[in-house]
Amino acid sequence: MTPIQLHSYQTPNGHKASIMLEETGLPYQVHVVDIERGDQHAPDFLALNPNNKIPVIVDPDRNRTVFESGAILTYLAERSGRFLPANEQERLVTLQWLLFQAAHVGPTLGQLWNYKVFAAERIPSVIGRFEKETARVLKVMNGELGKRAFLAGDSYGIADIMTWPWIHAGLKHLGLDLAASPDVGRWYETIGARPQVRRGLAIPALGDRSDAA
Amino acid sequence: MTPIQLHSYQTPNGHKASIMLEETGLPYQVHVVDIERGDQHAPDFLALNPNNKIPVIVDPDRNRTVFESGAILTYLAERSGRFLPANEQERLVTLQWLLFQAAHVGPTLGQLWNYKVFAAERIPSVIGRFEKETARVLKVMNGELGKRAFLAGDSYGIADIMTWPWIHAGLKHLGLDLAASPDVGRWYETIGARPQVRRGLAIPALGDRSDAA
Repeated sequence: MTPIQLHSYQTPNGHKASIMLEETGLPYQVHVVDIERGDQHAPDFLALNPNNKIPVIVDPDRNRTVFESGAILTYLAERSGRFLPANEQERLVTLQWLLFQAAHVGPTLGQLWNYKVFAAERIPSVIGRFEKETARVLKVMNGELGKRAFLAGDSYGIADIMTWPWIHAGLKHLGLDLAASPDVGRWYETIGARPQVRRGLAIPALGDRSDAA
Repeated sequence: MTPIQLHSYQTPNGHKASIMLEETGLPYQVHVVDIERGDQHAPDFLALNPNNKIPVIVDPDRNRTVFESGAILTYLAERSGRFLPANEQERLVTLQWLLFQAAHVGPTLGQLWNYKVFAAERIPSVIGRFEKETARVLKVMNGELGKRAFLAGDSYGIADIMTWPWIHAGLKHLGLDLAASPDVGRWYETIGARPQVRRGLAIPALGDRSDAA
């Protein structure tokens, strides 16, 4: 098959797509979209995603462009026949946890990142709000991961691939602490040990800012 | 069929589910979860949704409990055979826009609502950040709705039902202005004129705080 074209950058949302591509083994090529330089606002990129966010994939053989990481993971799961059960009930449970990441984990840690690390002004009440919500989200995850091995069931799947990069970023950049969330810790270590995940985290290689890696 | 059990409250996320139930015509009963009183933290409710958020539906005939509004809409679309195309490509586009709502429209307007209306402290830089992001999100929607009648295509569907209640709440509570977004305005008026939408907005009736309406 013609390689899938991945447009991405070194961010947790970008890592969802690169980890999934590594996990599926589908052939792909990387295009660096330097969001620190503003590449996401270029007309060529907006033609791929009007919401000016990475990641985006283009699958030339099927003439398909996909944005929103949860949709990308769903598409690649169907394309590869892996990481998403065929059973309708299990698919719905997976969709719940994809949405939990999209609506809660990502926005909460994203705001915390902004206010704790990037914002010109450190506002304790705002940082406190997003820290409290982060703790709540971790508690929810810990409760679920105490009942089963992975977020959406007994098998590793796209709900995990959707969520893991944000927990990883939280540990690395936001002082996240999993002491009170041992089951999240076990889940985090299990997934983080996968070579596909380590490879996905290294993509895109930012030494390589030309168009294709 | 046994009526679907809707656990909800008067919020934009709650309205997604009640509007969808009105649109499908599926029989349902309403249970008020008074989130101002803290009902969402009660053990009975946490057994339905560990993430302590409304809405939740229970479909007794299929022994199914569903949380996350995007998953509820997808489930009810499949249950009724309406508002979600069978075609795989159109389903993926719908999923993109469900996720766009879950990850961008909802979190942004939700934070704006908190900081503009509920927070003890009014912090101009924080309100400004979420107002700017709200304007960006509206601009993205307006661009898309200039190209087609509805968010995910030419037909009204669950991506619209997912998003409309938040635009409605923004207009009602957050001083949202659609003057610069005429295509969002046209879409908003078209959907808002549907009797099913008007009925859905009235649910749950808060005079009725007993268990079933």
